[in-house]
Amino acid sequence: MTILSIDSGLERTGYAIFRNSVYICSGLIKTSKTQIKEKRLKEIYDSVNDLVKKQRPDMIVLERLFFFRNQKTVITISQAQGVILLLAAQNNIPVEFLTPLQIKSIITGYGKADKKAVQKMISLTLKIPDITQDDESDAVACGLAYCYLNKNLIK
Amino acid sequence: MTILSIDSGLERTGYAIFRNSVYICSGLIKTSKTQIKEKRLKEIYDSVNDLVKKQRPDMIVLERLFFFRNQKTVITISQAQGVILLLAAQNNIPVEFLTPLQIKSIITGYGKADKKAVQKMISLTLKIPDITQDDESDAVACGLAYCYLNKNLIK
Repeated sequence: MTILSIDSGLERTGYAIFRNSVYICSGLIKTSKTQIKEKRLKEIYDSVNDLVKKQRPDMIVLERLFFFRNQKTVITISQAQGVILLLAAQNNIPVEFLTPLQIKSIITGYGKADKKAVQKMISLTLKIPDITQDDESDAVACGLAYCYLNKNLIK
Repeated sequence: MTILSIDSGLERTGYAIFRNSVYICSGLIKTSKTQIKEKRLKEIYDSVNDLVKKQRPDMIVLERLFFFRNQKTVITISQAQGVILLLAAQNNIPVEFLTPLQIKSIITGYGKADKKAVQKMISLTLKIPDITQDDESDAVACGLAYCYLNKNLIK
């Protein structure tokens, strides 16, 4: 069972791969601010498509979007997520959504935990160095929370 | 010069085609509420892709999104627009954005005109029966405003 978790954004899209509840890898897809929006969305699509072809996930896990505190980003984050959802449908990969509250509660035991606390718990749980890139750690947290939630405890 | 104007939404996506500033056709792409979101986005993508293959637009014109009065829809509208923007990039079709204020001002002379006033002006200008489907008339208004804005006056 391979899980691809994604934290989508126009500038930075974090991703993580878990296989049978074991952390395999994670990373960031970055797009250039100087590029027009539609080309940046295509870059995200192409990069995630490459990941899907290589890792063959059985499931894609995403953070459920809400009306953000920072409303300026909700449109671009949703546009990027739309592209990921399309890709999931094109490849017949089911999608699951977790809320930020679920993710933080599952990882740290506290639904309002800050990013540092989440990053620290990820590092301790997975026995990997701190992932200090926010969007990458968000994707790892999302995938890890999904594994916990499905009682596939991390080794 | 063929223009495809689109008013995207998860449930109903309106579109219109203008060729050399002449209205050619318009319509609605509807997706089922009972279908999961990612499949609905794929239906929109596939339908617009068919349109692009058939009509070969040189330009796609979209309404610029803002933080809506109705915040519940901003996420799904943005996700649907993300899919359209991806399609534009994949087909190397340039995208132009118009604001709702620009569209209403250009079509009716009044930036806060209601939908009925816009629909009436479209009908009078293009000499076609009233288009009473909101998303279709929004797409026609967007394309018509773009033609006006580029001084390609409608015949």
